[in-house]
Amino acid sequence: MSEYLIAREELDFLLWDWLDLAGDCGDAVDRESADAILDLSARLAADAFLPHYKTADRVEPFQDGTGVHALPEIGAALREYAELGLFAASFPPELGGLGLPSLLANASFAQFLAANVSTAAYVMLTTANARLLATFGSPAQITQFALPQIEGRWFGTMCLSEPQAGSNLGDVATRAVADGADALGDRYRLTGNKMWISGGDHDLSENIVHLVLAKVAEPGRATEEGTKGLSLFVVPKFLPTGARNDVAVAGLNHKMGYRGTTNCLLNFGEGEGALGWIIGTPGQGLPQMFKMMNEARIGVALGAAALGYRGYRHALAYARERRQGRPSGAGAGPSRPILAHPDVRDMLLTAKCYAEGALALVLYCAKLVDRAEQDAEAATLLALLTPIAKTWASEYGLAVNDIAIQVHGGYGYTRDFDVEQLWRDNRLNPIHEGTTGIQALDLAGRKLRDGAGLAILRTRIAETIARAEAGAALTGHAEALDLCWRRIADAVGTLRDAGSQGMASNATALLRAFGHGVVGWQWLDRALLCTDAPEDPFRGGKLWACRYFFEREMPRIDAWLRPIEAGSDIGAAVPAEFL
Amino acid sequence: MSEYLIAREELDFLLWDWLDLAGDCGDAVDRESADAILDLSARLAADAFLPHYKTADRVEPFQDGTGVHALPEIGAALREYAELGLFAASFPPELGGLGLPSLLANASFAQFLAANVSTAAYVMLTTANARLLATFGSPAQITQFALPQIEGRWFGTMCLSEPQAGSNLGDVATRAVADGADALGDRYRLTGNKMWISGGDHDLSENIVHLVLAKVAEPGRATEEGTKGLSLFVVPKFLPTGARNDVAVAGLNHKMGYRGTTNCLLNFGEGEGALGWIIGTPGQGLPQMFKMMNEARIGVALGAAALGYRGYRHALAYARERRQGRPSGAGAGPSRPILAHPDVRDMLLTAKCYAEGALALVLYCAKLVDRAEQDAEAATLLALLTPIAKTWASEYGLAVNDIAIQVHGGYGYTRDFDVEQLWRDNRLNPIHEGTTGIQALDLAGRKLRDGAGLAILRTRIAETIARAEAGAALTGHAEALDLCWRRIADAVGTLRDAGSQGMASNATALLRAFGHGVVGWQWLDRALLCTDAPEDPFRGGKLWACRYFFEREMPRIDAWLRPIEAGSDIGAAVPAEFL
Repeated sequence: MSEYLIAREELDFLLWDWLDLAGDCGDAVDRESADAILDLSARLAADAFLPHYKTADRVEPFQDGTGVHALPEIGAALREYAELGLFAASFPPELGGLGLPSLLANASFAQFLAANVSTAAYVMLTTANARLLATFGSPAQITQFALPQIEGRWFGTMCLSEPQAGSNLGDVATRAVADGADALGDRYRLTGNKMWISGGDHDLSENIVHLVLAKVAEPGRATEEGTKGLSLFVVPKFLPTGARNDVAVAGLNHKMGYRGTTNCLLNFGEGEGALGWIIGTPGQGLPQMFKMMNEARIGVALGAAALGYRGYRHALAYARERRQGRPSGAGAGPSRPILAHPDVRDMLLTAKCYAEGALALVLYCAKLVDRAEQDAEAATLLALLTPIAKTWASEYGLAVNDIAIQVHGGYGYTRDFDVEQLWRDNRLNPIHEGTTGIQALDLAGRKLRDGAGLAILRTRIAETIARAEAGAALTGHAEALDLCWRRIADAVGTLRDAGSQGMASNATALLRAFGHGVVGWQWLDRALLCTDAPEDPFRGGKLWACRYFFEREMPRIDAWLRPIEAGSDIGAAVPAEFL
Repeated sequence: MSEYLIAREELDFLLWDWLDLAGDCGDAVDRESADAILDLSARLAADAFLPHYKTADRVEPFQDGTGVHALPEIGAALREYAELGLFAASFPPELGGLGLPSLLANASFAQFLAANVSTAAYVMLTTANARLLATFGSPAQITQFALPQIEGRWFGTMCLSEPQAGSNLGDVATRAVADGADALGDRYRLTGNKMWISGGDHDLSENIVHLVLAKVAEPGRATEEGTKGLSLFVVPKFLPTGARNDVAVAGLNHKMGYRGTTNCLLNFGEGEGALGWIIGTPGQGLPQMFKMMNEARIGVALGAAALGYRGYRHALAYARERRQGRPSGAGAGPSRPILAHPDVRDMLLTAKCYAEGALALVLYCAKLVDRAEQDAEAATLLALLTPIAKTWASEYGLAVNDIAIQVHGGYGYTRDFDVEQLWRDNRLNPIHEGTTGIQALDLAGRKLRDGAGLAILRTRIAETIARAEAGAALTGHAEALDLCWRRIADAVGTLRDAGSQGMASNATALLRAFGHGVVGWQWLDRALLCTDAPEDPFRGGKLWACRYFFEREMPRIDAWLRPIEAGSDIGAAVPAEFL
């Protein structure tokens, strides 16, 4: 079954040849240790995560009088993961971590996401939670709440949304009232309802650490409007005393996919208020949460890419095995694998472009995470590419899973095969941690507001184009890429001048054009590493995929840009009654 | 709940204003009777089909020692449908039918498909089966097997695929051995395994009539190769004597959606051979089956369009109700319905274009069915548009269901709402009755082989363009449409000259370009009926949708045509080892 996970050759190519992992590792990790991590990850993902993939879909979490119960295999897999120290992979040694570069840690984690996304999600939530605490929490808070998560004994959540406040956090109504102070800092009692809490309750870990967005309420004073008044609180399921905190599960959401991850409606403070400790100072909740959110968005993108990649592998394996028909002109004789049909190969090329392109894009961002601490350019570029990676991987990863069903024909529509579940699981990714529409507003309204990020990106693209033009094989693609980015940059300028309604009408179209432009650039950049080995199946495959992307995908950009160039604002202009 | 079904105003506009149903009805049906049929359909769909939509998804059909059992509500709904004579809607009075034009019958049936596609599918299969028998069967066969289906007492199936023969029917291995003759014609004993048989067994009707594709086996002679040797046999579950025929359920397929429709692996002839009667003469199986298949493809398209249309209605209702955030610049104050956000309106415009465009396209084909008997041009055009309608409605209906989830955000991903099920249900439609790839080969390799169909289509498009140019409001769209069809026609010529590999590499791209070109033409054609009422919410809405389609969708055609124009054959050229 591990043939469906991420090919080691793919990871090696991306990490060492394309992204220069050696440069990131410094003295921390040598090639041998990195190889050992990747070997271990592939094995554990195949042995402990993959086997309950379908079971966790069939046997949903349930709630009874004692709490929420998840499939025991999920807990067993996560305990193995914890015992091998993998929760701690990307944390520094002083926090008990392995100190792996983010790039390597993400490459390792991609295998678990590919094998079983809803089991791996507990890791994603927990490490993001612990990293936020490690960044903004007091030493006592880190010791109390972060370290047990880095050990994988406690799991974490993030509690942002409320039934009336989904994408718009300014409407958060959860309130925190001061309740003294202790060694863990200023203590509050929280009251409110939180919705869509992944991992909100379960029986998989000793404790659950909630990071809760709420507004401080002071007697006789109105809380601040909008997002400015938001603070972040650490609210454990079990208090340090061992007593149960005032956090109750009000219900479970029953999802179409991604089912192994429990998803809860939580009531904080049905009684005297849930006890929590503020992180940092009041009013810092949103920037703190965005630190976690940005990591979570890269994590969502990685999961979407991994699901897409696995879908591609399933489709390819099936197309090699399933025999049906004969290519036109082949006459009678035995039927051939469907891979012999040009239409099937065309679907697989599309899937390859999307799956490998998405994985590469996300790992490129992970590389930027490693650089961002020391390198302001990398940080700016990471901020720009985060909504791109989140959206492109989510949407085109899902598109791969759709293609994988199509390649399987009727079989792909049955639950006897994995591809239908991959498609259902992946459908969450364009929604959670900020929908595509939210990412588009982040890109057009925030990340492109000044030109710094785009300038850095275009410099890198220009470097790729220059290298392509110095060779001979890929100059046509380089020209097309150059032209495409001139148009995208013009469209960015047009939208910047278009006013808020024109911007809001076209932000998603710009995001799509931008995404394809970035992925096209990266395909060319990787293809340049392969021009000297066109006959090698792996490297030659990159050249074919790059050619395919430039022939069949890059022309789509025109359709997204044209309405922007024409000044269309139809989404803002159409009155609601005409819908 | 009936607000989510197809708006009566939509059907009235399409039937009477756009498609001139009055001209089809002749003396058979007056407006009052047609209205009564549509009223009745909407009511019965809402009262008997819609209520068990989710139940039929949750409670799957199961098999035990006595056969396959479906949810009882499905049987109850279909009995009501039969009691009202609706199985007979489109059959002539001499067969006990109502003699409704296909256009009206399809408009009626669309409500049932929207309400509950997997319950309505039994009707689709049964009427297609009965129509094939009525066309090719002997009078005795019609009386014995078609009439009980027209009454809705017996249900029908079509048994084409086998485990090793899905898209490629030339590999069918089921064999029929002569076994004498009786009043029902030449009798055979059939042996073989049939896969993907929708409605293959259940407890919903008194009997099940299988139409089975098989090859006649004569002692000492090899069966004919390929599809030429195929014949069609009528094989009932219960023989006219009342005895059980030798047809056994070997298993049920467990699907991702569309679950109320049982889907079986059937073994014919585990014992002495299943008794069946040949329809017509040996070797006529494929043309006979294609008569049924073409009707089935239009039926699939109608179901896909209806599911998409319902998804649009759900999304629109939710966007009007769900409050979240404020448009940029609106400051504080209460949150607004998400419909106020340009990005959401943009999604809904896309959904509207797709949903209404797909429904219109399929009903246009139903109109051609009515004309095709007397009018060779209509028959040729219907043949050309069948793969377009099948594919476009399937793929863009599904796209609407995807958008509907996105508009609902996290709620759309839960099973508390209908949109996730609509998406799962609709995913079957690009697969069954010929995948998108098969439709593409049908279009490029068969329907466009001579230029007759395309010439008829282009004449109709030219008429629309001429009318647009005679007015003032929509001349820009008319010019774009004209240009687009010149390019499509050129691409058809290019592919005709490209050889089988080039054709097979680009057939799907051509299908997509062709589909958008047809839908764009029809949007313009309908918009021309609305230019005098731009302020009317319904007619003005058509103008906005038309504008949107020309601004944001028609430019996509370029990306599909460009590789064809450039002579790309990458799907055929890429060697399998590079995938």
